[in-house]
Parts: sequence; structure tokens; C-alpha cells
Amino acid sequence: MEKNKEKVFAMRHSAAHIMAAAILEMWPDAKLGVGPVIENGFYYDIGLEHRFTPEDLKKIEKRMKKIIQRGDDFVSETLSIKEAEKLFKDSGQKYKLELIQALKEKGTTKVSENESFDIKPGAKNVSIYKTGDFLDLCQGPHVKNSKRIGTFILDSIAGAYWRGDEKNDQLQRIYGIAFETKEELEEYLNLRKEAEKRDHRKLGKELGLFTFSDVVGKGLPLWTEKGTTIRRIIERFVVDEEIKRGYQHVMTPDIAKLDLYKKSGHYPYYKDSMYAPIKIDDEEFMLRPMTCPHHYELYLSKKHSYRELPIRMAELAKLYRYEKSGELSGLIRVRTFCLADAHIICADEKQMHDEIDGALDLIEYLASKFDLKMGENYWYRLSLGNRDDEKKYFKDDKAWDTAENVLRKVLKQRNCTFVEAEDEAAFYGPKIDVQMKNVNGKEDTAFTVQYDFVMSKRFNLVYTNAKGEEQEVMVVHRSSIGALERAIAFLIEHHAGAFPVWLAPVQVILLPVSEKHVKYVNDLSAKLKEVNVRVEVDDSNETIGYKIRNAEKQKVPYMLVVGDKEIESGHLSVRKQGSSDTTDVSFEEFVKIVTVSPEINE
Amino acid sequence: MEKNKEKVFAMRHSAAHIMAAAILEMWPDAKLGVGPVIENGFYYDIGLEHRFTPEDLKKIEKRMKKIIQRGDDFVSETLSIKEAEKLFKDSGQKYKLELIQALKEKGTTKVSENESFDIKPGAKNVSIYKTGDFLDLCQGPHVKNSKRIGTFILDSIAGAYWRGDEKNDQLQRIYGIAFETKEELEEYLNLRKEAEKRDHRKLGKELGLFTFSDVVGKGLPLWTEKGTTIRRIIERFVVDEEIKRGYQHVMTPDIAKLDLYKKSGHYPYYKDSMYAPIKIDDEEFMLRPMTCPHHYELYLSKKHSYRELPIRMAELAKLYRYEKSGELSGLIRVRTFCLADAHIICADEKQMHDEIDGALDLIEYLASKFDLKMGENYWYRLSLGNRDDEKKYFKDDKAWDTAENVLRKVLKQRNCTFVEAEDEAAFYGPKIDVQMKNVNGKEDTAFTVQYDFVMSKRFNLVYTNAKGEEQEVMVVHRSSIGALERAIAFLIEHHAGAFPVWLAPVQVILLPVSEKHVKYVNDLSAKLKEVNVRVEVDDSNETIGYKIRNAEKQKVPYMLVVGDKEIESGHLSVRKQGSSDTTDVSFEEFVKIVTVSPEINE
Repeated sequence: MEKNKEKVFAMRHSAAHIMAAAILEMWPDAKLGVGPVIENGFYYDIGLEHRFTPEDLKKIEKRMKKIIQRGDDFVSETLSIKEAEKLFKDSGQKYKLELIQALKEKGTTKVSENESFDIKPGAKNVSIYKTGDFLDLCQGPHVKNSKRIGTFILDSIAGAYWRGDEKNDQLQRIYGIAFETKEELEEYLNLRKEAEKRDHRKLGKELGLFTFSDVVGKGLPLWTEKGTTIRRIIERFVVDEEIKRGYQHVMTPDIAKLDLYKKSGHYPYYKDSMYAPIKIDDEEFMLRPMTCPHHYELYLSKKHSYRELPIRMAELAKLYRYEKSGELSGLIRVRTFCLADAHIICADEKQMHDEIDGALDLIEYLASKFDLKMGENYWYRLSLGNRDDEKKYFKDDKAWDTAENVLRKVLKQRNCTFVEAEDEAAFYGPKIDVQMKNVNGKEDTAFTVQYDFVMSKRFNLVYTNAKGEEQEVMVVHRSSIGALERAIAFLIEHHAGAFPVWLAPVQVILLPVSEKHVKYVNDLSAKLKEVNVRVEVDDSNETIGYKIRNAEKQKVPYMLVVGDKEIESGHLSVRKQGSSDTTDVSFEEFVKIVTVSPEINE
Repeated sequence: MEKNKEKVFAMRHSAAHIMAAAILEMWPDAKLGVGPVIENGFYYDIGLEHRFTPEDLKKIEKRMKKIIQRGDDFVSETLSIKEAEKLFKDSGQKYKLELIQALKEKGTTKVSENESFDIKPGAKNVSIYKTGDFLDLCQGPHVKNSKRIGTFILDSIAGAYWRGDEKNDQLQRIYGIAFETKEELEEYLNLRKEAEKRDHRKLGKELGLFTFSDVVGKGLPLWTEKGTTIRRIIERFVVDEEIKRGYQHVMTPDIAKLDLYKKSGHYPYYKDSMYAPIKIDDEEFMLRPMTCPHHYELYLSKKHSYRELPIRMAELAKLYRYEKSGELSGLIRVRTFCLADAHIICADEKQMHDEIDGALDLIEYLASKFDLKMGENYWYRLSLGNRDDEKKYFKDDKAWDTAENVLRKVLKQRNCTFVEAEDEAAFYGPKIDVQMKNVNGKEDTAFTVQYDFVMSKRFNLVYTNAKGEEQEVMVVHRSSIGALERAIAFLIEHHAGAFPVWLAPVQVILLPVSEKHVKYVNDLSAKLKEVNVRVEVDDSNETIGYKIRNAEKQKVPYMLVVGDKEIESGHLSVRKQGSSDTTDVSFEEFVKIVTVSPEINE
């Protein structure tokens, strides 16, 4: 950890202790769970009958400031496990006692990353920290004195199960935000406010792009006309571009016999993220969680010669993966999604190299059309295997070496940003993850390009080489933009809902100044529709000012105000979204501006 | 029945008796099931340990001819049920005995349409027919004398469960074809041969359009690149045309909570054709068998004013319906299909009239682009309700009268072919069925346009009228080309695989005369791809004659043979599929010919 990071970490960690101390002073019955540092702050899980309210947060903040004023030092002590047990038993802190129990029995208290700092794994003794009367099971580090914890606010209250397990008690989690300086805290809060404005769930509702229905089910978006328009444009753009690059688009069924996933070997690994089987007659069928075995079966439907390879088999594939209802979130975490998927069947390593390189070409081309920048909005992560872990990774050291070298070579030859990560590969080979950062600054793997030297064995995927012999293929698994749902969520947030004109569900809105201009506007709308412009008319009885404000809110790229002047001149008075200037152009000029294709960057 | 139809019916029915008589003479143990008349002939189900072979059919035919030569009369007799029971018990005909039992207990022996002629429903007595020593439980009519049964052949052997129930004995079904004259029989056999050549399952394999995999599952087609190309072209054509006509395309999930289908009231009616629920956490989800409730939920996601109506909500919707594995057939009967579906939400009967009229406009427009002719390849059937059947149809006589009148009025105003059919409506209203005849001459309902005055009540689908009051909507359910799988099967058969150039998966195949012309051909292929022509190169080491024959088999619309002459002249030597003439055209002219849009009829 760098020096400053360490310092801020200690501040946040200390703030968590102070919060717990304040809560215990105010509600002596409170039972403390864990209180780790997180990005931008900290939280503490509290077991308490009283339900915390936003007003309580204010009061707790006040009490924390009072405690800080006392200027207590953070003092570390080492206890034997037995001593620690007695201590927390006496103070009735049952969750802390459980942590010590876990340490004793399993050598660690860790059930999730967040807890990693609470007790050192494998320890024989436990470390505690004291500030004034308060003491906590804790590994540190902390600031020297409570006066040095920087600046903070208490932010929000959420529910959380003890140790993340829904069978356990439900605790109340209080989140705090903490920085070294007031300026940093304020900057963060401003950024977050901006991110909230861009939240695709909020914008999706405001712009009428998608919706959810309780009776249809959670995690199952219903796309409105506008959302569907964006999706159709992206789908066609991706499919057409892939076909241009020699991909063969296919369609395979969304359900298949359980046997297929047993044959592929996916079933034991994916069982928990698959939905339960559907019995049809005496067979069991599954909603597919991935496309690979479907494409392999299509490949197997006829013999293949070396002359045909590489075969780039692509599909906009609907996939179904189980997500807990609590983890569903807008279009980012859904229970069914459509992956722009492909499997490239290659003859040898040379083809694997070239095809992976080509896949990255495509990914970067598409990203550029969506206005995403390498190194800024996305970058690559080379995810490597671990030769010693034979359980997690298919054992074939030589194949792993070759595959990892191919991927590394491709990345090094390109003008791209990439990092390497140990022990992040797939079972069947190393991969390149496309990492993205969302508006909240959170990094996530959006999709991947994988090197697979295993599946061909399971499915007996072969081709006839030039000598007339059967030879095993190798497979690149890749997406080009990932899941459409996620990609669109990302684009909504990236563009804050103001899509580039080629993606905008409504490209132009026509605003008649008054009732008598409506007929002219409707004719104009028909003329624009004829040349495939996506147009809407606002013929409501509102004032022109109101109509403009509304069109601005809807983030329609172009507004055409139509009154007497425009009708007389025959020209169009064009107002661009986000600007208050208008320009006069002819119908033909305007059509040219609006029907720009994604090929041309705006 | 018209005079001649009745005559041929009697001939076929009599031939079935003669066949049964012949079989009993040859295998006295044979147990007779039912032996009805069917289109173009007859069949008889036989229970027998001996497995019939094609050679047996020849022998049975011979024996039948011998029996016919005896010139026995068909003589009818009436027996009491008791007498009949004794008769068939004595002769060991256990299936006949079961039929009599069923008649006694349920008043009918009917379990399917095919059996309707065997015993008159509700009869107290049973009628039998004798020819020579043979007698059969039978209602007639028959020819007077066995010499008058016309001309026939025994055609094929299939398995069939007794009474169509797989829990019963499996019988052997022998099919016969029978006509009044030899000429008619031969004409039928020729037509059938042609139809077999056009069979979409056969052509689908030969042209490499789709395939099936046992491990993926029956009834789940995997579309190859070529099949997917056809499907994508049709999908985009339909979607774009619908959008032009004011449809709003949406996307809704393929699974939904069971509650949704309970809310819609579909569940009790559709239960048997739905797949079993999938449990997710503590909720049950279904693969959707229809789109309607999904669209209603989308409609309900916001308030609607009369100014917005009609709303035409369309979707290429994947649906899942249970089919017995024995009934699956190519792309015609599948377990999942994609319906070009829509629901038009209307304010009143006037809008219902206009929207139904508009839906028929669209249907006829699309049909014309696919080269289908009204009255010849398809026609309408007005399917009416039955005021007395309150179980089958929602009770509201006035609404039924209105709806039926609206549909009839629309049809009468149009220049179209339609018939009326009693008691064929949906639960929620009358409908117009689009009837099609396939290459085998079999009539089928391809898809429908329905008038629904019920669903709005269940879902509380309302709009705000001009007075500001809430008012119930009415709904048109319609497809525009039906299920894509079926439509494509139909088109494959209709065009015998030789698709019009705008639909052809490969529009042009380039045939280099020899190795030295391959480079030129590859460049030409790239140039054609750049202007979106779907092109393939045959660079195999075969002779040019072989390449041409192969391209003919693949039914590629245009072949370009490229040798020294073509390279020198820079012209293209174009050979149209099915013709042996070649024409010289320039590259530009050729591109114009090939990139014809479906808007222009060829």
C-alpha cells in the first residue's frame, strides 16, 4: 500500500471504530458485526432492535464528533484467543465471539473480502484496539489519535445479513464516507451526484427506454419502443459489422437437453448459476447459460476441411443465468441477457493468434463508434492460469504456456492498455478480459476473449488437414460488445442519455408553434419518415417554451420549431440538443445531417 | 357430400375393407383396429406380431385383387349391440369389441376425426358390412360390388397407437392410395413426388439451411449461416415494414412468472401446451406460450390518453409450446418458434375495424412480396363463435355480434377470398384465420387476426377519453407472417429452394475456370461483398462443368464463370439458375440486378 493510501485507510478504519463507539454509547444493547474500510469510506454492521433513521445518523455523527474531541489515542493490545473470548463474552458482543470461534476452528474469520482486515488469518493470538472505553477486535492499522481521522459524513443505512448469509440475523449497515480533506469529500459527493444523474435505471425511466413488471418478474426487463429502437440499431450494427469481417451468423435454440451441458462438462461448474431443469416427456431441458456447446453441435453437423478454417460462428444469443433477487440491478444484473457471442474454430496457433488479434480489432472498432476510449473507458486484462491448481484449471502445462504466450504476444504488438492478472483464467485456458469503469468509478469485466484448448477434446471437434488426417481444432470464445443489456446500460450512463444521433430512438422532434401549424408539421413528419428519419411530433396544447424544455429533457438530438416564418421560408429552423442557438437549413441538408451512419464519427 | 366425392369415399372405404379381408386371409391372427378413409386413400390399423415389410404390401395387394375378382357384394346388416359383441368376441377382434364397449358407455366411439365414420354416435344398434366371408363394424357407405372399388396401391407402413394413446398397444398402420381412375392415381403420385422434392426437411438438409442435434433435443432447430441469412432478411423486412406502418416494435422477456398467465386467464386453457414451471427462489417461472400478457404489462407501465390510440405494439416473439415428440416435423412443428406478433390497442369499434383492415393490408403486401397469391396459396377463414357454448366462449352476445359484424364487414369490403366457419373462434372473440395450402395440398391455419373484447377487463387496460374519463380498450391480436420457422418452411417448399434473389442466402457464386483465375475471382468477390452482395467462391479443384452442376443443385440465383475471356474483357459472364444461357454485363449492371430490394417484384 502506498504511504497516502495507507494513511487514508487508517483514517477510515478509525472512523468506523468511532462510529461503533458512538452507537454503543447511545444504544448500549447494540451488537457489533464487522466494520471494514471500503472504497471512499467505511461501514459497520449493527445488530439492534431499534431501527435507525436518517435523523439517527445525524445524532450519531454529532456524538462521533464529541468522541473525537476527547482526543483519545488508538492503542493496540494482543490477547490470547481465550482472553479475547472472555472479554467479548462479558460485553455480550456475540458476533465478535463468533469471529473468534471461526478463527479458532478454521484458522480464518474471512467469509468475504471486506472482512479480511478484521483478524489476521492463522493467528494464535488476536489483536484488539482501544480508544477510550471502546475496544474492538481488530488488526489495525489506525490513526494515532482520534483527532486525526480527517473528515467524514454518515451516508446511508442498509440491511445486511450477518456474514452475508440470508439464514443468519439481519443487521443494519451504516455507511460512512471519509476523506483526508473537506475538499476531497466534497469533490467525491459532487461526482457521485453527477453519477446518480447518469444512473441508467433513473434515465431509463425518465426517457422511457425500459420498464419492469412485478407480475412478469424481477430481473426481466420489458423494452419499450424507444429502448427497442436503440437495441435494434446496435444489434444490426454489430451483426452487419461482424458479417463484413467474415463472421457467419447463426441461430441456435435457447433451451437444450441437460445432456448437452453434461457432454460439454459445463454442468458441474455452472450448475448453481443455471435454472432448474424443465421436464419434457422423459427428458430434462435447460435454459442455456452459454452458447458454446450449441455452436459445437452445429459445427459437428457436417465434416470440415482445413480449407474452411477459421470458421467464425457468431450469434446474438439469449442466455439465462441465475442471480439472487437481491443482486438484480437495472440492466446490469438481469436474469436473462443477450450476448453478442462467437466461437472461432481454428486449425492452429497461428490462426488463434490472428483471430484473437482480429477480435480485438473489432472490439476497438465498435468501442470507437460508441465513443469509448482505450485506456480511459476500457482496457484489457490478461487473465492467466495457475499451473499448481489442477482443480481449477485443466492440467496441460505446455498448452497453458503456449496459450498465454500467444495472448501476451497479441497484446504487446497492439497499441493498447493492458494489465496482467494471475489466477483469473477460465478452466479451459487463459483469456483477455475487457475491463470497463462505470460512472461510479467501479471497474468490472464487461466481456472476454478466451483461448480454449480443452473443449475440442470433449466434443471431438476435428477437421481434415491437408494430408487428409483428422486433427483437433482450437477455439476462441469471444464477445464483441458483451451483453446488449449491459452495453446499453453503460451507453446510457456514458452519454447521460443524450445518445449520438445515429443511436437516438427519436432523432428529431417537431414543435409546431400553434394549432394552425400542426398540419404542416405532420406533412413534414411524413416526409422525414419516408427517408428513414426517426421523428416525433409534439402537438400538445403547451407553449413552445414548454415544448422545447420537454424535448431537452427527453434529450432528442434535434428540435425543429415550426411557425409562420418557417412555413413561409420553407427552411427548417434547427435547434441542437443542449444548445439554444438555431440554424436555418434546407430539408435536404437536414436529412444529410440526421441520417449519418455510425461509420462516420460525429 | 357431392355425388362424386361420395362415390370416391365409398370406393376408398371399400378398399380398406378388402385390404383387411386380405390380411385376415393371410394372417388369421390379425386384430383389426380402425380403417377410415383419408385424403387420397385409406388406412387400416392392424395388431399383429408379424412385422409387415414392403414385400408384404405387394403380396397383400395381390390377394386384394384376387378377392376383388370374386366380385362379392357389400351387404349391410343391423345388429343389436349385444349381438355385435358376441360376433366380435367369437372372432377374437378385441379392438372392435372395445369400440362397441365405448359406444355402449359413452354413446360414441369417436376419439379422433378419423374414426367418425365407424359407428354412428348415440346409436342403440350397430351396423356391419359383409363382403364374402369378411365382416366389419361399419356405418358405410360402400360400393355395391367389390369390382367397383376403382384403382389403388398400398403405399406405406407406419406405427400407430390404438386410439392414438401411447399407453395403448402399438399397431401397424397400412396406408393405401385409391382413386376412381388410373389417371387420377398417377397424377396424384406425380404430384406427390414433386412435393417430396420440395419437402423443406429434405431441401433444408441439401441446401444446408438448418439441422437438428439429438443432444440439443428434438424440435429445436439449429440454423446454419445460410438459414440464418434468410431468416435475418425476413425478420428485418417484416420489422421495417411494420415500423413504416406505425407499429412500435418492443422486446419483452421469454420467461415470466406463472402469476402472469394466471392473471391473463390463459393458464387453465394453455396449461397442457406449456412447459413445466421453473422454480427460482420461491417463485415459479414459465417459458411463455404467448406474447399478449407481456404486451399488456408494458401498456400498463404508464397512463395512456385517447390521443395515443391506436397503439400497435409488435414483437418478434420467441414462444414455447409443448408438442409430443412424435408430432414434431422439421420447421413446421417445433418446440420453440418465433412469432411475428402484435397487439393493437384500440379505443373503439371504428378503430378495431380500421386496424383489422390495415393488418390484412400488411398481410397481403408481405404475401405478395413472397410471391404468394390470394385465393391460390392462401385465403381467409372467418371463424365465428357459438352463443350457446358458454364454456368455450366468453358470454357477451352483444359483443360477439358486434365483433363478428366488424370482421365480416372488413372482409366483404376487400377484394379477397374468404369462407366462414362456425364454432372456430377464440375464447375472447371471433377471428380471421389465414389459411394456407402446402405443397402436399394440405390446408392449415398459418396465423390469425383476432378481435378481443375480453382481455382488457382482466388486465384493466384503460385509456383516458376526451372527457377525461377512464375507458376500457379493445385489442386486435395479429400476426403478419406467422411463425418465422413455418413461414420459411413454406417458402422453401413454395420456391422448391430456389429463393428469389433478395432472399437467397448466397446470391452469386463465382466459378474460376482454373487455378490461375482464383486470384481475380477473390478480388471480384471482395468487390461484390463491399456493395453488400452475398457471394461465395468455388475454388475447389473440380472441373467447371462440375462446379456449375453443383451451383445448380445449391440453387444459387446467379453464377459467374471466370476464365481468360472474362478477365480480358473485364465483363461478367452471368448464368441464371435454371438456365444454360449466359449474358455479358458490366460489374455495375450486375450489382444493380442482384441488389434488388423486396419492394420491387422481380
